[in-house]
Amino acid sequence: MNRTIPHVVVIGAGFGGTRVVRGLRDADVRITVVDQHNFHTFQPLLYQVATAGLDVGDITFPVRTLLRKHRAASFVMGSVSAVDLDDKTVTIDNGDVISYDFLVVAAGSVSHSFGIPGVDEYALELKDVDDAVRLRNRLIAQLERASQAMRRGDAPDELALVIVGGGPTGVETAGGMRELVDKVLAKDYDELDLRRMRITVVESGDRLLPGFHQQSSVSAARALAGRNIDVRLDAPVGAIEPGAVVLRDGTRLAASLVVWAAGVTASPLAAALGTPLERGRVTVEPNLSLPGHPDAFAIGDIAAVHGADGSLLPQVAQPAIQGGLHVAKEIVAAIGGGQPTAFGYHDKGSMATIGRNQAVAEFPNGLRFRGFVGWVMWLGLHILYLMGFRNRASTLVNWSWNYLTYDRAARVLAERPPPPAND
Amino acid sequence: MNRTIPHVVVIGAGFGGTRVVRGLRDADVRITVVDQHNFHTFQPLLYQVATAGLDVGDITFPVRTLLRKHRAASFVMGSVSAVDLDDKTVTIDNGDVISYDFLVVAAGSVSHSFGIPGVDEYALELKDVDDAVRLRNRLIAQLERASQAMRRGDAPDELALVIVGGGPTGVETAGGMRELVDKVLAKDYDELDLRRMRITVVESGDRLLPGFHQQSSVSAARALAGRNIDVRLDAPVGAIEPGAVVLRDGTRLAASLVVWAAGVTASPLAAALGTPLERGRVTVEPNLSLPGHPDAFAIGDIAAVHGADGSLLPQVAQPAIQGGLHVAKEIVAAIGGGQPTAFGYHDKGSMATIGRNQAVAEFPNGLRFRGFVGWVMWLGLHILYLMGFRNRASTLVNWSWNYLTYDRAARVLAERPPPPAND
Repeated sequence: MNRTIPHVVVIGAGFGGTRVVRGLRDADVRITVVDQHNFHTFQPLLYQVATAGLDVGDITFPVRTLLRKHRAASFVMGSVSAVDLDDKTVTIDNGDVISYDFLVVAAGSVSHSFGIPGVDEYALELKDVDDAVRLRNRLIAQLERASQAMRRGDAPDELALVIVGGGPTGVETAGGMRELVDKVLAKDYDELDLRRMRITVVESGDRLLPGFHQQSSVSAARALAGRNIDVRLDAPVGAIEPGAVVLRDGTRLAASLVVWAAGVTASPLAAALGTPLERGRVTVEPNLSLPGHPDAFAIGDIAAVHGADGSLLPQVAQPAIQGGLHVAKEIVAAIGGGQPTAFGYHDKGSMATIGRNQAVAEFPNGLRFRGFVGWVMWLGLHILYLMGFRNRASTLVNWSWNYLTYDRAARVLAERPPPPAND
Repeated sequence: MNRTIPHVVVIGAGFGGTRVVRGLRDADVRITVVDQHNFHTFQPLLYQVATAGLDVGDITFPVRTLLRKHRAASFVMGSVSAVDLDDKTVTIDNGDVISYDFLVVAAGSVSHSFGIPGVDEYALELKDVDDAVRLRNRLIAQLERASQAMRRGDAPDELALVIVGGGPTGVETAGGMRELVDKVLAKDYDELDLRRMRITVVESGDRLLPGFHQQSSVSAARALAGRNIDVRLDAPVGAIEPGAVVLRDGTRLAASLVVWAAGVTASPLAAALGTPLERGRVTVEPNLSLPGHPDAFAIGDIAAVHGADGSLLPQVAQPAIQGGLHVAKEIVAAIGGGQPTAFGYHDKGSMATIGRNQAVAEFPNGLRFRGFVGWVMWLGLHILYLMGFRNRASTLVNWSWNYLTYDRAARVLAERPPPPAND
């Protein structure tokens, strides 16, 4: 191998990691991307896969194909089991050790149970495409069981979906599920009267969409209520039990299906680095490098980056994207003998959709949109961001079809479990 | 329930079962469809999913949505564990017992190992979408392992695909795999020199496509050879071992991946009926009813139906489709007090595609096409048959994209195994 060309190792092929690669397109470096999946996932649309609006292939893209544009980029499919910042090595779970000249830790976040009992056992996360397919499968399995009970003359188990967490994921999943249930499944299972199936969003704080403007929170709550979705605010969860979500005040909410969208925490790799942490996330210098390790960087959900107001940046796509592009520039500068430059986050606004024709969108200049206008902006921006991926053509077909026909039925499949991908 | 309306139970939602339902659209009957999947699979395009040309959602369609058009049709997701032809009941694997007035057994076929050692352990079938995804996953897992070995400086395991069976499935899978490997994967894994990866079709008989005209067999063999695919004729397999296919003459063919496409046999439900069998398939009267049970019928792969030349009809879509429509008419006639009518099979011809721009198509009037013309006919007919399914729009998008760009990359995903669909 050519030892004189600097080697950049990127851990994670999410929004952050892929942007590092893009930013280094013209740099004279070798790049190795490590990820446990061989594909990038467009996470903001995961709830669409869970609610059968899109196929898995619409929101995923193979990492190796992304890397084709680069002369000297390679991919390793695996998990990182250790990082040695002094030796400058990364150890993969198969035992391989990879040396680096520059390291970018972009391993993202995992679902956070906050220590609440029963979350791991009885609730479903929504962090990757497997989770999304699993949620769909569970719902269908319950509907089929209920249908069979009806046929026998038994009373079917009560069907009720509780979504814990009133952030964008919770709000969007609730809206998408209501549409799926009312417009598609109610027709497929007309014996079950699914329009009466309860869908509840439970939020521990005093409003939905905590990171948004107060007015957007009010709009979202009104939109959900208008769509027959119960919203419970100031309702911290005490425990999840089989068949129920128990609030801290003792209230039991019947739940045949629980989606845990209450929050995320940095990947366990953060703690494994051995550098200082802030609320579980990796402390970084102003240029996003690790303290004492100017050749190693952390970006995205795993990094503790402060915004202009001093608070930690939210664990969403934009900080990861901007951080990735910044770190690519830092690496180019370091190779050229340049000085570190502080990362400056540019807030581009926030959006959440509540379903057909309805979304909230707000921008740092104070402009806010809701309803149909918000929804059109949401749709346009997401299609724009899927660009560069070949997926957008069939995504457009799928969305157009859904919009015109209310029919997501073609994707409501109970997939059977394939065996592990090894032999 | 309304006991005066006859109840038709259909076992299987494949080509045969769905056509029974369609044929009974205007009949005054209740219909119950039983299938272990909640979706219909367009099996002739399974190899396209295996070779990443199409997504699972492109070739599957939910049974319940198909049934919506019928006033009194319902669906039971499950396997049939027993049929009592005298009591007129069907028992589902969950223990439920369903009574019928008319029964249609359309349970299809399963892969047949012919008692050859190692088939179940070391070869992959291609009978349903899980098989197709599994084949894709295995291939990618092997490529990733080989890539990691290269990176360590080890010699990677030899990559070689052997497809056992020279019928349409074997030929189409071989052609599709060669395109996937040469046009997509060779770019994604440029360190592996995949254009040299050997793909072999092994056929026990003296020609490919045994059910076709001799000239089509010759065309197919020539086309495969021209695409760098080894064809071994008169090569019956003696055993499958880890890493190798061993022919009966002792020849060992190295094989990191073995696809078993050598043949199918009727579903085990055939034997469970307790009625006479012919080569494992259910013997039927001229009107497709079971001997001594005029209210029970068998159609498609599971039925032993003879063609005009006296041989058993092939286990492909057309006999199932035509049998299903015929049985629907028989049921209507029986309810109205009419007489049984003999089933007459109408041969519509056969087709097999070898890849981009190349296929063989032949018709009973003696017309035969090959090359580009054959391929265009193949494409048109398959899109036509997918009609009625909403899937055709995105299938067209996917195929057009593949054709124009040679890029199937977006679907080359190693899917991780979701847990079983129950809770």
